[in-house]
Amino acid sequence: MNALNPRPGPLPNTLQLTDERQLRHLLDVEGLGRPLLEQILDNAESFAGLNDQGVKKVPLLRGKTVANLFFEPSTRTRTTFELAAKRLSADVMSLTMSASSTTKGETLLDTLRNLEAMQCDMFIVRHAEAGAAHFIARHVAPNIAVINAGDGRHAHPTQALLDVFTIRRHKGELSRLRIAIVGDVLHSRVARSEIHALNTLAAGEVRVIGPRTLLPAGVERLGVQVYHDMDEGLRDVDVVIMLRLQRERMQGAFIPSEHEYFQRYGLTEARLALAAPDAIVMHPGPANRGVEITSEVADGPQSVILRQVTYGLSIRMAVMSMVMGVNPKVPA
Amino acid sequence: MNALNPRPGPLPNTLQLTDERQLRHLLDVEGLGRPLLEQILDNAESFAGLNDQGVKKVPLLRGKTVANLFFEPSTRTRTTFELAAKRLSADVMSLTMSASSTTKGETLLDTLRNLEAMQCDMFIVRHAEAGAAHFIARHVAPNIAVINAGDGRHAHPTQALLDVFTIRRHKGELSRLRIAIVGDVLHSRVARSEIHALNTLAAGEVRVIGPRTLLPAGVERLGVQVYHDMDEGLRDVDVVIMLRLQRERMQGAFIPSEHEYFQRYGLTEARLALAAPDAIVMHPGPANRGVEITSEVADGPQSVILRQVTYGLSIRMAVMSMVMGVNPKVPA
Amino acid sequence: MNALNPRPGPLPNTLQLTDERQLRHLLDVEGLGRPLLEQILDNAESFAGLNDQGVKKVPLLRGKTVANLFFEPSTRTRTTFELAAKRLSADVMSLTMSASSTTKGETLLDTLRNLEAMQCDMFIVRHAEAGAAHFIARHVAPNIAVINAGDGRHAHPTQALLDVFTIRRHKGELSRLRIAIVGDVLHSRVARSEIHALNTLAAGEVRVIGPRTLLPAGVERLGVQVYHDMDEGLRDVDVVIMLRLQRERMQGAFIPSEHEYFQRYGLTEARLALAAPDAIVMHPGPANRGVEITSEVADGPQSVILRQVTYGLSIRMAVMSMVMGVNPKVPA
Repeated sequence: MNALNPRPGPLPNTLQLTDERQLRHLLDVEGLGRPLLEQILDNAESFAGLNDQGVKKVPLLRGKTVANLFFEPSTRTRTTFELAAKRLSADVMSLTMSASSTTKGETLLDTLRNLEAMQCDMFIVRHAEAGAAHFIARHVAPNIAVINAGDGRHAHPTQALLDVFTIRRHKGELSRLRIAIVGDVLHSRVARSEIHALNTLAAGEVRVIGPRTLLPAGVERLGVQVYHDMDEGLRDVDVVIMLRLQRERMQGAFIPSEHEYFQRYGLTEARLALAAPDAIVMHPGPANRGVEITSEVADGPQSVILRQVTYGLSIRMAVMSMVMGVNPKVPA
Repeated sequence: MNALNPRPGPLPNTLQLTDERQLRHLLDVEGLGRPLLEQILDNAESFAGLNDQGVKKVPLLRGKTVANLFFEPSTRTRTTFELAAKRLSADVMSLTMSASSTTKGETLLDTLRNLEAMQCDMFIVRHAEAGAAHFIARHVAPNIAVINAGDGRHAHPTQALLDVFTIRRHKGELSRLRIAIVGDVLHSRVARSEIHALNTLAAGEVRVIGPRTLLPAGVERLGVQVYHDMDEGLRDVDVVIMLRLQRERMQGAFIPSEHEYFQRYGLTEARLALAAPDAIVMHPGPANRGVEITSEVADGPQSVILRQVTYGLSIRMAVMSMVMGVNPKVPA
Repeated sequence: MNALNPRPGPLPNTLQLTDERQLRHLLDVEGLGRPLLEQILDNAESFAGLNDQGVKKVPLLRGKTVANLFFEPSTRTRTTFELAAKRLSADVMSLTMSASSTTKGETLLDTLRNLEAMQCDMFIVRHAEAGAAHFIARHVAPNIAVINAGDGRHAHPTQALLDVFTIRRHKGELSRLRIAIVGDVLHSRVARSEIHALNTLAAGEVRVIGPRTLLPAGVERLGVQVYHDMDEGLRDVDVVIMLRLQRERMQGAFIPSEHEYFQRYGLTEARLALAAPDAIVMHPGPANRGVEITSEVADGPQSVILRQVTYGLSIRMAVMSMVMGVNPKVPA
């Protein structure tokens, strides 16, 4: 199975954009052109300023109802979407979806129809199956927006966007940067979205680093440099994006042992010294400390891991406003 | 046991009305006179308009605290009450009540006293035992309102009201209508409330259709026409209200098999053709497709099943405002 | 083990006060001077007035985010903090914390760092281990306030404060009062906080009553009179504070049997007659009826047990405002 091409149905840009090429759903960063990506990042910038103020709330989505549909548990992602919705003054409903609901079954469609009838305005969807958010977006009423909060190993666009936002905020102009994505690219729904976003924004050079077993076949066709030796791959990069080793997703023997994985691909202070002196270190969290990254690096001066969490709120506020057609300008 | 007369204690109209004959609690549609029923429907009408607008929120219950006391799980009903409360700007607390609390035990009274002391303003009560909401209404402090969200097989007044609202909205003047209620009347807490509401509002003709085992003894004394043959019963009706086959409530053999039930009482397109050409089809949801109704009919042009969900919010907003003594007039 | 001295680390007053001696965290009533205690009580008084009004909500904490971190389940305490936060217009997140998180482990610190990055403003902490809230307060970012909602058998300051508030409201000037604390002082996190608060506010006389096995060694050094005979201890007191028999906390045989405990220390109407005729009876709830108190007394005319619940909201609103540096004056 090729993790890079599981997309079912029509091209997402026919689905996630309005006729005026505004954001209608956020399903995937693929198909979002450079102007739209930059608009999302700029809008997130204005929310980032807001979040540093005492009153972190704006009335942009007052009277709107956001339904969290998490078919796969994720306290962390659910919490940040919930917080983002509350800071936009929306009402939030969190529904625990039974595992038996499927993307094709009548049950899911029935549930969607009922939530539509309750006049929800937005569905935040997390599902173990690739294409679930696309399926839902294809079937919802015209006034409802869908945001993909992770579908299988397919995509996780808000995480990819917050990563790009972090890079732009801390390192500036992307075209001048060398960026390395390290680790379990095969099972990562973030890495794929990220490579597309970085390509669209014309990042200088994107590298992927990992063992052959954890890199998808044909990954170089996405326009990235492939490294199997970490020391080589890290040399002179400006940004190191570590991926979480998806232990729960691995069936069979992708890696010989966690110990050996750490020996070859764990990010230590010694290895980080091979990158540019002011390189930043990123991780989507939660980190497997001692497996893909040491605590010294994760908590060290070059780490921006916790800033990513903060920026995640800004990106989610930006995207949620935009799919509601609301001008996200906030008071300065 | 007779499902039609399980009511313990005093007549509900001495309990659910104020001295000025305004709504104080909503426990049962029995005892609500025609003017009050019509006032509820009219108020719901103004909320229905609101719900079509972009901002679905009014400040009518700002600063009020609504406690959801669900002794019996029901995501769907709980969610609609929660949404209705939020759209009225109330604060909502959802309490999972332990199954061991009983309507008579000290534990329940202790819990009520504590919630009163926390200055809750309204209790939404769902309980497996008939009379639970009445029991609570008899024991709460004078400033607290109780809404029955379903007590055993006894009553479910907001569902009955939203059904009547649906009929009035789609078919107009009730006195000119023939209305059939089909299926498991015996185990339905909705059917009973519904028959009373339709009688009070002087509906033209009310029929119940079902096998002898699923109709309560003496049901004809409620002023309804009884049919055991569905084709006969459906002839020329303007409204078909299908009931959910309460499989989880049936102890013993009320029906030979679901297959045979469908053969005799399932609503198909062929059977629906016996009704008036512009008849509407209703169902409280979730439907057992292929048991009491086919998907063609449930999703077909005559179905108003999803409109019922929407109207349910309007009815709940109307009732919650009224028991708080708040004028539910909303901006046009 | 001595329950009276489990405090780890520096004195709490260096931790819970700002340089201007304002409340920064609320961890323990120890170390709070008389002016600050009286300020808390006065502020709670203004919220108590608010709570009697129709609109029980003020915008004092609008735009603030409160995170409930309950490592130990407590529906009741969590609910009152949640309600207090909502009535201050804050946004509330309730996080169920896994039992495996420890006060010293990396996991807890990681969680804290992530919640900080989500720009939470306040942590309400309940934990089975003494010192947990202090540990968290020592490690949070400078802009975050911590409120101890109970840590092991160590402290439960908002409960102690609401008890003192209750006494002051119902019996007036503390210096003229005789106050008895009865029962399981050893396992009570409330009793310890309470004795300190009463001493600081110069209460006339504080007595503790209980069997030797349920009183901490050296309790008399806290400035209280010790009684093992309940009839003696209750004589002429103005306030009787009953403690809950912490059956779930007792390992081994602290009492011969519940029956015998009731015989010697249960509060009956006959025993209460030994106190001053207008004495009030308090209990933190939920009461073990028939073990430490009879229903006649708990529900009787001298009981102020349910008033304590109401005052608990006012105290929590006062403390939450103060640690946010917000002037808690509310419109009269």
